[in-house]
Amino acid sequence: MKIKTPQDSHTIMNELVLPNDTNTLNNLMGGRLLHWMDIAAAIAAQKHCNRIVVTASVDTVSFKHPVKLGDVISIESKVTRAFNTSVEVRLDVWAQNIPSGTRIKSNEAYYTFVALDEDSHIVSVPELTPQTEEDHMFYAGALRRRQLRLVLAGRMDPHDATELKALFFPEPI
Amino acid sequence: MKIKTPQDSHTIMNELVLPNDTNTLNNLMGGRLLHWMDIAAAIAAQKHCNRIVVTASVDTVSFKHPVKLGDVISIESKVTRAFNTSVEVRLDVWAQNIPSGTRIKSNEAYYTFVALDEDSHIVSVPELTPQTEEDHMFYAGALRRRQLRLVLAGRMDPHDATELKALFFPEPI
Amino acid sequence: MKIKTPQDSHTIMNELVLPNDTNTLNNLMGGRLLHWMDIAAAIAAQKHCNRIVVTASVDTVSFKHPVKLGDVISIESKVTRAFNTSVEVRLDVWAQNIPSGTRIKSNEAYYTFVALDEDSHIVSVPELTPQTEEDHMFYAGALRRRQLRLVLAGRMDPHDATELKALFFPEPI
Amino acid sequence: MKIKTPQDSHTIMNELVLPNDTNTLNNLMGGRLLHWMDIAAAIAAQKHCNRIVVTASVDTVSFKHPVKLGDVISIESKVTRAFNTSVEVRLDVWAQNIPSGTRIKSNEAYYTFVALDEDSHIVSVPELTPQTEEDHMFYAGALRRRQLRLVLAGRMDPHDATELKALFFPEPI
Amino acid sequence: MKIKTPQDSHTIMNELVLPNDTNTLNNLMGGRLLHWMDIAAAIAAQKHCNRIVVTASVDTVSFKHPVKLGDVISIESKVTRAFNTSVEVRLDVWAQNIPSGTRIKSNEAYYTFVALDEDSHIVSVPELTPQTEEDHMFYAGALRRRQLRLVLAGRMDPHDATELKALFFPEPI
Amino acid sequence: MKIKTPQDSHTIMNELVLPNDTNTLNNLMGGRLLHWMDIAAAIAAQKHCNRIVVTASVDTVSFKHPVKLGDVISIESKVTRAFNTSVEVRLDVWAQNIPSGTRIKSNEAYYTFVALDEDSHIVSVPELTPQTEEDHMFYAGALRRRQLRLVLAGRMDPHDATELKALFFPEPI
Repeated sequence: MKIKTPQDSHTIMNELVLPNDTNTLNNLMGGRLLHWMDIAAAIAAQKHCNRIVVTASVDTVSFKHPVKLGDVISIESKVTRAFNTSVEVRLDVWAQNIPSGTRIKSNEAYYTFVALDEDSHIVSVPELTPQTEEDHMFYAGALRRRQLRLVLAGRMDPHDATELKALFFPEPI
Repeated sequence: MKIKTPQDSHTIMNELVLPNDTNTLNNLMGGRLLHWMDIAAAIAAQKHCNRIVVTASVDTVSFKHPVKLGDVISIESKVTRAFNTSVEVRLDVWAQNIPSGTRIKSNEAYYTFVALDEDSHIVSVPELTPQTEEDHMFYAGALRRRQLRLVLAGRMDPHDATELKALFFPEPI
Repeated sequence: MKIKTPQDSHTIMNELVLPNDTNTLNNLMGGRLLHWMDIAAAIAAQKHCNRIVVTASVDTVSFKHPVKLGDVISIESKVTRAFNTSVEVRLDVWAQNIPSGTRIKSNEAYYTFVALDEDSHIVSVPELTPQTEEDHMFYAGALRRRQLRLVLAGRMDPHDATELKALFFPEPI
Repeated sequence: MKIKTPQDSHTIMNELVLPNDTNTLNNLMGGRLLHWMDIAAAIAAQKHCNRIVVTASVDTVSFKHPVKLGDVISIESKVTRAFNTSVEVRLDVWAQNIPSGTRIKSNEAYYTFVALDEDSHIVSVPELTPQTEEDHMFYAGALRRRQLRLVLAGRMDPHDATELKALFFPEPI
Repeated sequence: MKIKTPQDSHTIMNELVLPNDTNTLNNLMGGRLLHWMDIAAAIAAQKHCNRIVVTASVDTVSFKHPVKLGDVISIESKVTRAFNTSVEVRLDVWAQNIPSGTRIKSNEAYYTFVALDEDSHIVSVPELTPQTEEDHMFYAGALRRRQLRLVLAGRMDPHDATELKALFFPEPI
Repeated sequence: MKIKTPQDSHTIMNELVLPNDTNTLNNLMGGRLLHWMDIAAAIAAQKHCNRIVVTASVDTVSFKHPVKLGDVISIESKVTRAFNTSVEVRLDVWAQNIPSGTRIKSNEAYYTFVALDEDSHIVSVPELTPQTEEDHMFYAGALRRRQLRLVLAGRMDPHDATELKALFFPEPI
């Protein structure tokens, strides 16, 4: 299996916020954005795996700014790290009000996916080699985020989550 | 403002998985489920607040079992705790294959919402008083989950997250 | 085949009225509500039959109150009576304006369904045993409503519709 | 107000049955068809009234034949009679499988609508003058169908429903 | 194969302009109209061919008048000429504002389709015989439009496009 | 008004082909693609104009290859030339089958838009300065395509369409 880079899975998606995507105050509903982010992330994961993928988890997502009817949502996604049978995808989301020319960072998020063959069996995925400094930073962080997911799912003892422990309670130097 | 109970906001939503909700293996896409969960959670939050609400955050969600085309997704939501201007909503999601009579727990999740007035200003929300033993358990846990959200968002120092610390690394007795 | 009760098929569905569901006066369109009611009724019928079901008929539905953009439609459905190869489902529909806390009865309706096997052949359905006093009332009424459907469809002579006759023109005591 | 004929409101609508309109056996769901019929009927009612209209009731609809994915639904609608502030619309629905060249009558139905002004107040509607023999037949029947709606809604005593009585239990000659 | 006339494929489609079809100024978006036109044209092409058809090309379409939220789009389509394995369909589009009673010509367009068998192979299509004077005019023009398509696609040398040449630069008499 | 470059409006959109976008042979319907292309082009035009825009015309589009359910459509759009009150946008469309790793050019197209102010009045648009060699090629061609649109719309005499004439029937050297 060919080794891939984060750039190989880089995906850009733009969506126009339409009336049915908004609440009665004309703000984009969070669930609609999570839906778009899932599609953008799945396309990136598919590009890395050359397989059909299914969402395994979504990490905590915060919504900081209201997005309005008529704005353009711009989503960038790329794979940050490949594990045995799963990949982590980072998403950066911007909201643009094009007539006024504003563009603000709306969200950052991590989705993970597992790859399936034609019979819906989980299969192993290609390795990922980080290239840029930023790639390396996301690659390293993926391990900590994975431990957090496992602890939250009750599948890892917090005392074994050494990476996570260092994140929350770094040793005094 | 009237004090509310979790039961006051209890909401049930059923959705049929249609072709456009699925990938080419006929599995429900995770983003579509996150979208439905957001609507079910927002209805519960609105019932508690008697206000329009907007999604503030979604905690880590794991997808454990594939859900198939034609299955019925059943979502239950209720408010677990009210803070000053926000509420936490717990969601329990089941997938039912009705012809075969199976019903499996698909997800558990927590969404938070802030309440807005007609001018889109954030307003304070009614208090919540837990009633049942389960209500009290979710109420207590809400504080730990809130600290985790704040730490992950870089808005709280992990050393001040005393509730969270106890969760991950409980004191030896 | 297991005998079922109305409670076995009891289904609750909540839907948020979005812009595309409304006309230019921001009122929910009747056809959209009939569509949601059909899905809620079909889920109840499937729970009773443990089969794929298809809509056989919809009885007269009246729309008494306008429902507005942003309201929450709450639909309850349950099987009232099983015939050989069909079931009747009763629907109760409420419209809630959650910020103002109002909740009004919007509609009552009866849909009937036939059950199909994997080859789309009509199959017999489980019996239903009414439990509560209300169950018995709906069970008894189902026969009259069935006669009305058959008379309207030209498949029963009005003079043979004895139940129906009693409904419209009760004998003097 | 100009007097209108049934032809003035005559409307034709064709819809292609897409995957999301069907159940897992690839049959068109009844609720989706009721939704399309409501739109086709509302367009006819609007043409007659030159007003925004809202659905007041739907008479019993039977679904006799399965309609398949890829079929074309053809709906014809026209106003049959105008009352003070409402109109009755008749719908004829066909399902066409175009590659095989078949075209079968799928449904007949009656929807009623009330007309609203810009402030959502109910307003009176133009009169209708039937032209053809068929127009006269539908015009006459509209009175009987109206009495049935009123009796079913508990707003008319069956003994006063003289037209309806004649329908069900005609006098011996 | 039976010879067909333009009338055999004549199709009428009406669509109500809903919120999600419009931009933030409440104008129908051009792409949504092109989508509806494609469906109306495909139905006409299917009626002529009695086959599944796929869009081969769309000729230049101009949008002259804004269409508003709540308007009714009325599309008429019919086959103008059959070539070996493709047909040309003409579309006439009107926008009606029904409360005010206005109806304006919105667009004219030509779509072409190829017919496929069950294995997605291109197959030959029935001949078309024009009947009315208008039919003959559209039939004759179809050849010029076809040459323009071929020249624009780089598949015909402009000097061989004799029909087209006559269109643009007619000989002095 | 700031002068813009084609790069300022460059937009990328990715869309997953879902069941409702396809016909019964699982091929993407042409009209659905034209709809997505309109949105991608409108975003580019809005970026250039910093205004709400409406579609003025679509030039001939050919569909050369079938696109299948589950494929990812990738659309790139950018403004090629600005006229007084309108802009021309070029679209390049690819279809990717990600599991198999194929990516083929599906379409090229030109859409034009006019810019509107808040009162829906047409307003003048910023100038465009081509930068790269390719930009200059598209910029020059825009004049020819504009003449073709005007001739086809009957708003320019072919003999005055000097650019167009040179395209079709170049002078012998």
